[in-house]
Amino acid sequence: MEKRKIIVYIATSVDGYIARKDGSVDWLDRPRAKGSHGIAGFFRSIDTILWGRKTYDFAMSMGGLSMFGSKVRNYIFTHRPPAQDAPDAEFVREPIDAVVKRLRAAPGKDIWMMGGAGIIASFLDAGAIDEFIINVVPVLIGEGIPLVEPSRRDVDLKLVATRPYPDGLVQLHYAVRPPAAVKKRPKPSSSVAE
Amino acid sequence: MEKRKIIVYIATSVDGYIARKDGSVDWLDRPRAKGSHGIAGFFRSIDTILWGRKTYDFAMSMGGLSMFGSKVRNYIFTHRPPAQDAPDAEFVREPIDAVVKRLRAAPGKDIWMMGGAGIIASFLDAGAIDEFIINVVPVLIGEGIPLVEPSRRDVDLKLVATRPYPDGLVQLHYAVRPPAAVKKRPKPSSSVAE
Repeated sequence: MEKRKIIVYIATSVDGYIARKDGSVDWLDRPRAKGSHGIAGFFRSIDTILWGRKTYDFAMSMGGLSMFGSKVRNYIFTHRPPAQDAPDAEFVREPIDAVVKRLRAAPGKDIWMMGGAGIIASFLDAGAIDEFIINVVPVLIGEGIPLVEPSRRDVDLKLVATRPYPDGLVQLHYAVRPPAAVKKRPKPSSSVAE
Repeated sequence: MEKRKIIVYIATSVDGYIARKDGSVDWLDRPRAKGSHGIAGFFRSIDTILWGRKTYDFAMSMGGLSMFGSKVRNYIFTHRPPAQDAPDAEFVREPIDAVVKRLRAAPGKDIWMMGGAGIIASFLDAGAIDEFIINVVPVLIGEGIPLVEPSRRDVDLKLVATRPYPDGLVQLHYAVRPPAAVKKRPKPSSSVAE
């Protein structure tokens, strides 16, 4: 049995932001290449979606999770779970390591890490991201929320594929090099100004 | 005669940074594909380099501008020019519009905008960048100096070419849509928290 992969599938601007500072993604709303950049194929390859709390709340405000169908399991990572679970989502307060171990032990398809930046960072630091599929939209938005919440962190990636689309979007597909390659850099000496 | 283009040719990490917070680019120092991603061809297409002051100072600390040869004209944009010009560089304190008008009126090859983030932002806001050639290095560095100094700014780009290299670097080549497409977004209403 192949290992279930945890994959960040996400859109960014050319300047590397996943949303404006206020969370809005109006800049994603543009004419698209036929086939929407292969999202249907990706969607068929997963059966589980992992959400950070803010991204989940944003999706709820945009009409809920039903757009992802009833066959997908949704897990929302939060330190402040509501009193009861939503019908189509499970709130998770366990450590990432434990949840990932449980998910990988169960049979199933790949797992979509939806983001945002905070949960991607936490998963990356736990060595729990296998791949990134980054859809680079041909626009600069100037400022916003970065792909990964900033922190001193070096992660080596391996380019798996590059797919340009007629509408100017480029899909960059990377595999994360094994956890041993995830290095936390030491704090610089105090003489280095930041 | 073709218009001389002003081209940002630069390397970024996958998370969109051109350098670490302290300016260091140690993460660029990795085994490279043969031919160094076509830099020689690009270098033959230009005869002028534009520098922001900090990037120029950094280059000087790394051994000076002589690595770019004696045939290239270097302009350094700064509000604090030194008492006299360096032998291989001219310090510019004029407004960007005036300098760009003068450069474009003179015959010559294309012009390399070296960066950093501040001068790229100023040129972009002046509608003076024609193209970006972004060499995306397959690594996440977590935090650093972004490609363009953050500001509320939308710029539409047109994908010109995508070139993946065997070492995992991907070169993304974009043209900036005409200056009319450069929009400063209005300030949000005061009810929007940032």
